[in-house]
Amino acid sequence: MNNHTKMKIRKAASEIYEAFVDPDKIGNFWFSSSSERWAEGKTITLKYEEYNAQGDIYIKELQENEKIVFEWAGDHTVTITFKEEDHDLTVVEVIEEGFKEEDENLIDQLLDNKEGWVYMLSCLKGYMEYGADLRASLLK
Amino acid sequence: MNNHTKMKIRKAASEIYEAFVDPDKIGNFWFSSSSERWAEGKTITLKYEEYNAQGDIYIKELQENEKIVFEWAGDHTVTITFKEEDHDLTVVEVIEEGFKEEDENLIDQLLDNKEGWVYMLSCLKGYMEYGADLRASLLK
Repeated sequence: MNNHTKMKIRKAASEIYEAFVDPDKIGNFWFSSSSERWAEGKTITLKYEEYNAQGDIYIKELQENEKIVFEWAGDHTVTITFKEEDHDLTVVEVIEEGFKEEDENLIDQLLDNKEGWVYMLSCLKGYMEYGADLRASLLK
Repeated sequence: MNNHTKMKIRKAASEIYEAFVDPDKIGNFWFSSSSERWAEGKTITLKYEEYNAQGDIYIKELQENEKIVFEWAGDHTVTITFKEEDHDLTVVEVIEEGFKEEDENLIDQLLDNKEGWVYMLSCLKGYMEYGADLRASLLK
């Protein structure tokens, strides 16, 4: 069971990849801060000041400008890939794995998770293409 | 069983409401075109040129600057509400009802539907706040 979300972003893969791994950039489209530059084997603390929340992710694999794999939420694995179709058009794909079919809250978990990834990718697109700050505006 | 999505948009409710009902505006954030101005009791044809798709919606109820209710996809009802919290901050909420718990494709239907609403609201936010065009970039 996994969640799978995919979006076209009009920017080079190298710039989009950098927006994730550079702690000065993530606050423009996703969490408010990241404790340090992402690197394989590191545990990074991500904070979401607006929701008074934080969590750790473990960076399992990095392929520069192409792929990021991390673990979070216990045993969930997130794979983000960057496929450059043109010098200024990249397909960014997020797959989160680890949902359990027998979990009684499975549907709510999947929907919350889908909401988060679609929103993150939309904010990333707005930031990359327009310098827009669209984050921290989803409500429950 | 319903899908429920809610987002803060920094713009007056009247301007956001108008973006839905005015056929000259919808193409900036959602479908590429709408056959005419939305009014109660009308059937409106929405086209999505990029996906070579179109469909009809039936406008069941309009409350100017506050609420839109329409039917689509057979027996699904969509309610969009606009709650102005300040003169330039509005909470836009979308509820789609009509999913059937016994449907064997329920999870996929809910996830596709959630993806669509989160993306539409993000595109609406980008358009309203930055004049950004973020639409037609989700891939399957």
